[in-house]
Amino acid sequence: MTAAQSAPSAALTAALAEIDNSLSSALDRLLALLAIPSISTDPAYKPACRKAADWLVADLQSLGFTAETRDTPGHPMVVARHKPQDGVARPHILFYGHYDVQPVDPIELWTNDPFAPAIEDTAKGKVIRGRGACDDKGQLMTFLEACRAWKTANGALPFNLTIFFEGEEESGSPSLIPFMKENANELTADLALICDTGLFADKQPAIVTMLRGLVGEEITITGPNKDLHSGMYGGPAMNPIRVLTKILGEMHDEEGRVQIPNFYENVKELPAAVAEQWKALNFDAGSFLGEVGLSRPAGEADRSPIEQLWSRPTAEINGIWGGYTGAGFKTVLPSKASAKISFRMVPGQDPDKIRENFRAWVSAQLPEDCEISFHAHGTSRAGEMNITNPAFEAAREALSEEWGLPAAFVGCGGSIPIAGHFGTVLDMDAMLIGFGRDDDAIHSPNEKYDVECFHKGIRSWLRVLDRIAG
Amino acid sequence: MTAAQSAPSAALTAALAEIDNSLSSALDRLLALLAIPSISTDPAYKPACRKAADWLVADLQSLGFTAETRDTPGHPMVVARHKPQDGVARPHILFYGHYDVQPVDPIELWTNDPFAPAIEDTAKGKVIRGRGACDDKGQLMTFLEACRAWKTANGALPFNLTIFFEGEEESGSPSLIPFMKENANELTADLALICDTGLFADKQPAIVTMLRGLVGEEITITGPNKDLHSGMYGGPAMNPIRVLTKILGEMHDEEGRVQIPNFYENVKELPAAVAEQWKALNFDAGSFLGEVGLSRPAGEADRSPIEQLWSRPTAEINGIWGGYTGAGFKTVLPSKASAKISFRMVPGQDPDKIRENFRAWVSAQLPEDCEISFHAHGTSRAGEMNITNPAFEAAREALSEEWGLPAAFVGCGGSIPIAGHFGTVLDMDAMLIGFGRDDDAIHSPNEKYDVECFHKGIRSWLRVLDRIAG
Repeated sequence: MTAAQSAPSAALTAALAEIDNSLSSALDRLLALLAIPSISTDPAYKPACRKAADWLVADLQSLGFTAETRDTPGHPMVVARHKPQDGVARPHILFYGHYDVQPVDPIELWTNDPFAPAIEDTAKGKVIRGRGACDDKGQLMTFLEACRAWKTANGALPFNLTIFFEGEEESGSPSLIPFMKENANELTADLALICDTGLFADKQPAIVTMLRGLVGEEITITGPNKDLHSGMYGGPAMNPIRVLTKILGEMHDEEGRVQIPNFYENVKELPAAVAEQWKALNFDAGSFLGEVGLSRPAGEADRSPIEQLWSRPTAEINGIWGGYTGAGFKTVLPSKASAKISFRMVPGQDPDKIRENFRAWVSAQLPEDCEISFHAHGTSRAGEMNITNPAFEAAREALSEEWGLPAAFVGCGGSIPIAGHFGTVLDMDAMLIGFGRDDDAIHSPNEKYDVECFHKGIRSWLRVLDRIAG
Repeated sequence: MTAAQSAPSAALTAALAEIDNSLSSALDRLLALLAIPSISTDPAYKPACRKAADWLVADLQSLGFTAETRDTPGHPMVVARHKPQDGVARPHILFYGHYDVQPVDPIELWTNDPFAPAIEDTAKGKVIRGRGACDDKGQLMTFLEACRAWKTANGALPFNLTIFFEGEEESGSPSLIPFMKENANELTADLALICDTGLFADKQPAIVTMLRGLVGEEITITGPNKDLHSGMYGGPAMNPIRVLTKILGEMHDEEGRVQIPNFYENVKELPAAVAEQWKALNFDAGSFLGEVGLSRPAGEADRSPIEQLWSRPTAEINGIWGGYTGAGFKTVLPSKASAKISFRMVPGQDPDKIRENFRAWVSAQLPEDCEISFHAHGTSRAGEMNITNPAFEAAREALSEEWGLPAAFVGCGGSIPIAGHFGTVLDMDAMLIGFGRDDDAIHSPNEKYDVECFHKGIRSWLRVLDRIAG
């Protein structure tokens, strides 16, 4: 236990009691938000995205905040403000979350309608089931419910607060940086809190201090100028699927190392202190992989699984398609074959260089007869948080108290670009605290969020806010 | 010119004159047959298939043949017989064709209703436009019209004839072999003639003497037991698309050779005489590939394009899919990745062995953590026609005479299973002669058949039959 134990304030005790007594209303509100199919990447759900934003504005107004949607070229932002008008100087906290969700395919693997959310009893306890249950509607609501419990119990929040929700996180956040720049004055606070990450272990809380970046890329290789019959042309005619598999099949060597030239340029070795702390976490790779039906780490053979995940860059094929993919068989020799590829980057790597190196590597292997087109999807740099900000130690203590296990400073294999943007665009520190569990199936069928995580998440925020405000 | 020139018989001369004078009636009959949408693969067109069969029975009866439909579990067969009752010994010829046609999608690419056939003037001459114009209604009608012209001019055919049409060729011919076995006595003749192939070049006729076989196979590789988030798992978790591309990317070496062990076992070298004859065809690989936007033969580097196409086995990926393939980007690390693969085989190769070798080769490369499932699609053996049957030389001479260019003995890259069935099921020789051109767009929108091919096709059969009967 790293946290200093101290008696909670009366206000905190009252707020904790309030949420313990009103959890079922908080769950009802979350279910109402989850029922809105706010899939940001699919234009068919544009109205649903606006509906989710409007729902949040109404909920924020019910908390006594000033709140409104703000139009962007894409989905609207939600901005809300709470500032007691008594002239007392208080810390200014910004809280960020996103109300959009991932697509639901493959829909046939869902046991229930992803947008008919429900509380389910499972062998491991009660869960909230539905798309966005964890990512990020369940998580962002932990913060709103913490605010509600505090206000109900104590009448006013002990800090100034700006709430900032976007609706494009799952589709590359195209409007985010322009909006942050245009509204820099309004959005700049002393500290940003972001709730979009997970616990380190089942009951062990975590604060993410390193995040990998992301480069998304799509390629289409064209061979013949139309689909051909493989009997009439098979042999002499170049098949673009063959070219695509040949190139992508060589992206990793036998040791799991990415073979694109200069891919590891500027990748730093982990500082000894961090390496030591990560080692002490006793990350259980066997159970981490075992839960998803795997047993052997597939990344660089000379790196530990936790390094592979948190501090090493990767290349993944996220989608591939070409030719006939329906039932039965069609002896087509297709004109085109495509793939979506992404790179997870670590601090020090330049996303533009990564993209450029990949394109050059693919192009160099292309047969004379084929053409290739590249399409850039989103980019985000890797991020390192400023853990010298005292809020980090305060939050570590608060989380340790709530969960009864020491909160860990951890890395995160995923990309949460917003964490970096607060630093680069608004010059403010950000802190990532979240309550997801590894088996939440975010981005997958049957996404869930444990009721325990939701409940203790709300309680965690109450403790964090009490300490930061105090 | 390889054909011996000889004066045509008076009966042949009369029959040739007859069709030259009555071509427009022959075209009208073909248009009537083309108007019947006999798409065999789509159950909605089952009545249309029967209508086409009935139409043919009526037409065959109008020729004085005994003719009837025969029910099968699928679409009906048409069987007709012509045998002069004068006791004279004559050769017994069987003619095979299929009255069913391919589906018409993508329908939006047709310039006209595919089942409102018409004669069109084009820059290259008059064409018959509509689904089935070439494949196979136009082609099979060349033979019926030849019979009609001969009978009209001369009163009787100089051979015994069985007509055998099926209505399931475009949907895998499920009823064909059982029907052939059950009716073996009735269907066994001295020689089968099949009209479902093309000219070698614009004006150069061909007899197909080699056909490649086909093995279809589908594989699905499973890594994690569910779709994962590539941020949360990318690195340590094995991606099945990576495994699939790695394996399939090594199916061919840099020289276009298939690397599956024993793949070329029992593949025979081309007999010198055939190699010589193929060389003399001066196959224009540049224009063959140029028409589809390619320039370099992609098969085995040490084989000519025509060998790659007609006498060498190939491995092709006909479809591949896995992960997220929609618009935008999803950083999924999928649970499964799949591909459809087919092998074109040449005489000597055993389809079961090919399938077995492929499966063993894939399985041997599978990482410990992945599972694979195999699904067999159709199989057909490669075929070699018995060119020592004197009918082949007779037909070569007849075709050369009609077209003014030497008829070629050619291979065919595709599979026409019926050609093999006559040998294996009924122990009789078969000869493939057809009049399609490369630009007929069979199986594609705006299928056509040149009026010249229809007309000279009828004249070709008159010459072939005259020689065979003679």
